[in-house]
Amino acid sequence: MTDPAIRPATDDDWPQIWPFFDVTVQAGETYAFPLDLTVETGRAWWMERPPGLTVVLEEGLSTPARRVLGSAKMGPNRPGLGDHVGTASFMVAPEARGRGVGRRLAEHVVQWHREQGFAGIQFNAVVETNTAAVRLWESLGFEIIGTVPGAFRSREHGPVGLHVMYLPLT
Amino acid sequence: MTDPAIRPATDDDWPQIWPFFDVTVQAGETYAFPLDLTVETGRAWWMERPPGLTVVLEEGLSTPARRVLGSAKMGPNRPGLGDHVGTASFMVAPEARGRGVGRRLAEHVVQWHREQGFAGIQFNAVVETNTAAVRLWESLGFEIIGTVPGAFRSREHGPVGLHVMYLPLT
Repeated sequence: MTDPAIRPATDDDWPQIWPFFDVTVQAGETYAFPLDLTVETGRAWWMERPPGLTVVLEEGLSTPARRVLGSAKMGPNRPGLGDHVGTASFMVAPEARGRGVGRRLAEHVVQWHREQGFAGIQFNAVVETNTAAVRLWESLGFEIIGTVPGAFRSREHGPVGLHVMYLPLT
Repeated sequence: MTDPAIRPATDDDWPQIWPFFDVTVQAGETYAFPLDLTVETGRAWWMERPPGLTVVLEEGLSTPARRVLGSAKMGPNRPGLGDHVGTASFMVAPEARGRGVGRRLAEHVVQWHREQGFAGIQFNAVVETNTAAVRLWESLGFEIIGTVPGAFRSREHGPVGLHVMYLPLT
């Protein structure tokens, strides 16, 4: 088994996800998520149920120091007649940045969508100043479909655009 | 008072909205909404709470035959640092089509967003074969930001694109 490994998240993982989820949302650079989530209300926001899925990337699997370094959630982007296109969101612990955690989670998410038979993956709101993410998605084949101008109030940059990105899988 | 008039919807309006809401969703040409909504679960889907709003367009106000011809819901498109851009959805009763109900609701929605101080209005998923709607939004100043290919399974046309459309208000 590889270490770190990616596996489905359980409710027991949430206390390890919440700190870096909260730091990321409050930093105000990458996600237009509610700013008033708590450890209790954030759980329902992040932990998907079927047909969606939430996973964690965990290291130190055979040690007492096993630790969740990142998490991703995925599933249909829309219900009904739009549920053949998927979507996903990603969170990486600040202390684990630069170690390829986001890329491993992203590759896992693409693979999952392929296996589930989705026609494509749509990201609805990629902050244009989050260039590391934009480059990562582009390296996986995602293209920018369009950009909604000023749709995100970045704490550092002020109003910046939100990219709609898409990867066809069929 | 003009007749028909647009006013905030109340729970008492829902039994009049539901039939044309359900017909529209099941027709499978305009909205990627859940296909298994009932008169009970559809209510929470359509009837917005603050900071959002649902309105109805009603005619025959001074007669015993007062009747809801259409409805629109509106509010922030995203939470948190994206809540300065609004969004909306529209439903018109089939028997009232071609009478400008959609246009009146659309103009009302744009005015509401202006009054509330939104920076713009984003439609996330306008079915590209719904040309009447696309033309209406364009006539109000909306532009197509981009189109996600094949993201909607139209019952008549098969896989068709979903436009992201945007109207800046500031």
